[in-house]
Amino acid sequence: MRLAMIGLGRMGANIARRLMRGGHEVVAFDRDEKAVATMAGEGAIAATSLEDVVARFDGQRIFWVMLPAGAPTEETIETLTKLAAPGDIIIDGGNTFYKDDIRRAKSCAMEKLHYVDVGTSGGVWGLERGYCMMIGGEEATVDLLEPIFETLAPGTGDLVRTKGRDGLDNRAERGYIHAGPAGAGHFVKMVHNGIEYGLMQAYAEGFDILKGKSSEKLPEDERFSLNLPDIAEVWRRGSVISSWLLDLTAIGLAADHDLEQFTGHVSDSGEGQWTIDAAMEEAVPANVLTAALFARYRSRVDTTFGDKLLSSMRYGFGGHVEMPQ
Amino acid sequence: MRLAMIGLGRMGANIARRLMRGGHEVVAFDRDEKAVATMAGEGAIAATSLEDVVARFDGQRIFWVMLPAGAPTEETIETLTKLAAPGDIIIDGGNTFYKDDIRRAKSCAMEKLHYVDVGTSGGVWGLERGYCMMIGGEEATVDLLEPIFETLAPGTGDLVRTKGRDGLDNRAERGYIHAGPAGAGHFVKMVHNGIEYGLMQAYAEGFDILKGKSSEKLPEDERFSLNLPDIAEVWRRGSVISSWLLDLTAIGLAADHDLEQFTGHVSDSGEGQWTIDAAMEEAVPANVLTAALFARYRSRVDTTFGDKLLSSMRYGFGGHVEMPQ
Amino acid sequence: MRLAMIGLGRMGANIARRLMRGGHEVVAFDRDEKAVATMAGEGAIAATSLEDVVARFDGQRIFWVMLPAGAPTEETIETLTKLAAPGDIIIDGGNTFYKDDIRRAKSCAMEKLHYVDVGTSGGVWGLERGYCMMIGGEEATVDLLEPIFETLAPGTGDLVRTKGRDGLDNRAERGYIHAGPAGAGHFVKMVHNGIEYGLMQAYAEGFDILKGKSSEKLPEDERFSLNLPDIAEVWRRGSVISSWLLDLTAIGLAADHDLEQFTGHVSDSGEGQWTIDAAMEEAVPANVLTAALFARYRSRVDTTFGDKLLSSMRYGFGGHVEMPQ
Amino acid sequence: MRLAMIGLGRMGANIARRLMRGGHEVVAFDRDEKAVATMAGEGAIAATSLEDVVARFDGQRIFWVMLPAGAPTEETIETLTKLAAPGDIIIDGGNTFYKDDIRRAKSCAMEKLHYVDVGTSGGVWGLERGYCMMIGGEEATVDLLEPIFETLAPGTGDLVRTKGRDGLDNRAERGYIHAGPAGAGHFVKMVHNGIEYGLMQAYAEGFDILKGKSSEKLPEDERFSLNLPDIAEVWRRGSVISSWLLDLTAIGLAADHDLEQFTGHVSDSGEGQWTIDAAMEEAVPANVLTAALFARYRSRVDTTFGDKLLSSMRYGFGGHVEMPQ
Repeated sequence: MRLAMIGLGRMGANIARRLMRGGHEVVAFDRDEKAVATMAGEGAIAATSLEDVVARFDGQRIFWVMLPAGAPTEETIETLTKLAAPGDIIIDGGNTFYKDDIRRAKSCAMEKLHYVDVGTSGGVWGLERGYCMMIGGEEATVDLLEPIFETLAPGTGDLVRTKGRDGLDNRAERGYIHAGPAGAGHFVKMVHNGIEYGLMQAYAEGFDILKGKSSEKLPEDERFSLNLPDIAEVWRRGSVISSWLLDLTAIGLAADHDLEQFTGHVSDSGEGQWTIDAAMEEAVPANVLTAALFARYRSRVDTTFGDKLLSSMRYGFGGHVEMPQ
Repeated sequence: MRLAMIGLGRMGANIARRLMRGGHEVVAFDRDEKAVATMAGEGAIAATSLEDVVARFDGQRIFWVMLPAGAPTEETIETLTKLAAPGDIIIDGGNTFYKDDIRRAKSCAMEKLHYVDVGTSGGVWGLERGYCMMIGGEEATVDLLEPIFETLAPGTGDLVRTKGRDGLDNRAERGYIHAGPAGAGHFVKMVHNGIEYGLMQAYAEGFDILKGKSSEKLPEDERFSLNLPDIAEVWRRGSVISSWLLDLTAIGLAADHDLEQFTGHVSDSGEGQWTIDAAMEEAVPANVLTAALFARYRSRVDTTFGDKLLSSMRYGFGGHVEMPQ
Repeated sequence: MRLAMIGLGRMGANIARRLMRGGHEVVAFDRDEKAVATMAGEGAIAATSLEDVVARFDGQRIFWVMLPAGAPTEETIETLTKLAAPGDIIIDGGNTFYKDDIRRAKSCAMEKLHYVDVGTSGGVWGLERGYCMMIGGEEATVDLLEPIFETLAPGTGDLVRTKGRDGLDNRAERGYIHAGPAGAGHFVKMVHNGIEYGLMQAYAEGFDILKGKSSEKLPEDERFSLNLPDIAEVWRRGSVISSWLLDLTAIGLAADHDLEQFTGHVSDSGEGQWTIDAAMEEAVPANVLTAALFARYRSRVDTTFGDKLLSSMRYGFGGHVEMPQ
Repeated sequence: MRLAMIGLGRMGANIARRLMRGGHEVVAFDRDEKAVATMAGEGAIAATSLEDVVARFDGQRIFWVMLPAGAPTEETIETLTKLAAPGDIIIDGGNTFYKDDIRRAKSCAMEKLHYVDVGTSGGVWGLERGYCMMIGGEEATVDLLEPIFETLAPGTGDLVRTKGRDGLDNRAERGYIHAGPAGAGHFVKMVHNGIEYGLMQAYAEGFDILKGKSSEKLPEDERFSLNLPDIAEVWRRGSVISSWLLDLTAIGLAADHDLEQFTGHVSDSGEGQWTIDAAMEEAVPANVLTAALFARYRSRVDTTFGDKLLSSMRYGFGGHVEMPQ
């Protein structure tokens, strides 16, 4: 199929590459002309503007927007809505807030355009491993895009098959699902990222406790000096907590045993926060996912005003003056 | 009554003073001779050693040990156990772990000594306000010490009386309780401190959110520059969250609006940790008390190894390199 | 001053009463005619409709809207905006989300109306104790309403004065503050409620641990059967954790030692959730306030799907089948 | 090698089987004669008592104790200590608290016995997949047991090799490590289980949020009815959160979409609690691991006294009476 990739950052470029390797035609556009030239060098059809993108199609157009969530995506989709013809398909493959998808799908429907949201996981490894995709939109449109998703997905690979899936939708086993109407794809991806934060923090706390076991605060005969790279590695082998994140942990620790290259300031993208919003809207307790998010906030400041307030109260009732330790 | 105060730090000295003001005789001992001399100057009977303390009594002795929990208290009580005569009373007024009280009470009973644990709250304000006391030990011994507790406690004061207390033990209304057998006093005090951590952290987080509302990260028309000293003050007046800790917060903020004198490193004593241990032994969920304790741990380090591990994983799947912000 | 009270529920009626006691004239309106008749019997000027409310003023009108947040308040204010004349003042005294205040203040300004938001704490006790008020709006309007706030506030009372407040705004000491522009009042009240949840949960967990200490799961010589009403009472007296919430706890426990009249399902209003939203917008960690909110969510369901998923995983790796305990 | 397996429950029996398949000789003992007979039928040397176990060796004996942690393990090891001869090796393969290992290793050393602790992960799947093992003890003894560990471990299998491990200890890649002196094996296994709880709870909360998205509490156009078995399945394929626990989740959901066979009461073993103890001893914040543990406590009770206390306070200040919802 012919598909326009709008946004040729790391993710967009790799998705375009995997599509071309799979025999699809890609119209490539980015504000950065060099990025377009690079893709053209790899076989893509270069476009110089959104208008030009539109001109590169005969009949039904498929636009895959792969831009930062928020204004860049919003403005591009608004423009496309004006340039597109009835029946065209706009795919938002970025990290959009799902309520924006619901709103946009309604606007698109008024113009007889089809809107599809695709939550995509796999990071920089997706080009080789394939992308795990969670898709929202009308059934007919999602079905029509089947060849695209088929190419991008990891496929069944050599994973042990889950017992009991006979008769269930086999797209899940090939690495993509039609999660529901517009917004459902990004909603499922959002929760995926919320879980990701929780998993990561669980490992982080565990390794912190392993590391802290050599602390001189402990009685000497209760200290252990543990080999963290070996521990991460052995847990990959038959343990209950083996995972892809643990594989990455093992790689990271093998390369830099003390992780000295990192400052310890950890970013978060919107999905973690939105997941907590969703939990609160549903009145679902989510202590682990929230604590994981808050640990990242805390990692980015040296101290908090709240910490100082604690010291102030302690001074108030006990005459303690807190000193750095 | 005559009572020996062993340990003349801030707490011990003030308790001794309040007892003397209430007409009791205090035998004062501390390893620091100056502290003893100071108390003697205020009317106490100076003692030069634990042996000397023992010699200053005719008949039944009452020892109030007011030393740091752990080795100092343990060793002193061991020595007293040897020096004392059957019928003597050893009071541990410090912050001892309640299981140590249970053990010691058994040892004391074998020597026909009486062991009483007194958890004491009130901080440096206790000399004037009186001490809130939670007492563990045999009923007869606690009853015998009534004049001591009566003097040290705040008394009913002018607090609004709690409806429905007719017929209940009026010692609680005067500021002390006999909580149960040995250990029960320190157990109740331990939970008191666990709650204290939780309350303090609730205020700390709230004021952090008030403070953060002026952040330039927010859209300009959603920012407020709030007057924190005034907010603390107004909440003292008829609000649901008025409390003594809020009174202290108001004092602290009035004196130093930005709390610049504090580094933000916050200590914790054993009680917070022991409260979580107790919760786990009982299988009681205690997310708030635990989060309050962990916030203090986090306040004392610049970064954690776990934070770096998060960055390492993020680098692994997304090629992100975390930078300080 | 003459003020219209729109909404005569528990809060609105008591505020109207306190105003009349303070010499103000109150125009009373509610959809429930009986509520209006009751207030009229206590000296208010009865109104039969919002139009009638408007007709009861000569010159500048002051409307105090005291209705449930959301649609009831929104619709009433919309109607008032149409009925009012330039210079009139609309006060929202309910639990409105502060971003709604910001929006409404802008709309009102276009009609030359003044919008003021008043966050009010004090519950059913406010009639006697006075109301703690956090106010947002233009300075001139808030100043003009001074006599109203003066009457409603608790006043300085006999609380110990906070050191260091000479030269600071004395309205805080009388029980109300002008927190900032429109929305600031409800923002501060929102954080107040967030803190309230945290404080309440800290006490809840502490008393849970005290209660659990009698559990038969514990070794017999480590169990205590503690008197919770007495503990709550004694902590009111000179302890670090004395507070108004503890006063209420002591009343509740004295009346019903085992709190058997309560099911344990605990509601939450919007402010707790909005406080977490604010924390996330500011990237402020708020583990305690969040855990307090989530404990309420959890209290309202018998089990969660997540709990079942844990059992399913345990069955998967260990062959455990979870049984009720 | 010849090794005695003491304790033939699910884990002990399977470990014995894997050893025998690997060419080792197993002396089998259990208090349950049937269990012994079963193993004998599979080729093991049956023993009728610990004394008989001892008699079944010429020269250096190797005892693998695989019993519930606590009294059963403790008593068995005490008895073995008396029966064994200098040079014999006692392995504790259960879930023992690592401080007990440290203590026991000292006692054993006084009798010239060697004590080795082996933390074992893999559950019921270990017989086929192999066991991930974390080992504590003296280097020479661990080296001597190499053939045992080699047989039990999963081996390198077909996992992608971690970059950067050239020159590092290759035992980790084969599925076992010598973590340090006695206790280190169980310490690492303990943290493994702490992490396991955190990972599981992260998935549990995420699926709870997915499930809750169909709730009628939400506005109709924001509800999604999501297919959880398909979501679990697709996340196995190239997503960042793929893991073995997710594989099990996918199996569980495929078999029973609503997990109706489970009550939602979730047990915990000691390791989760000990991990938090270790975190507190090291002053390491561990909000996620703790919240995961507490969620299990909460799952096992219908309500808490703390919940009722919240309602009591709410009644106190607001006149609310909480009703079931």
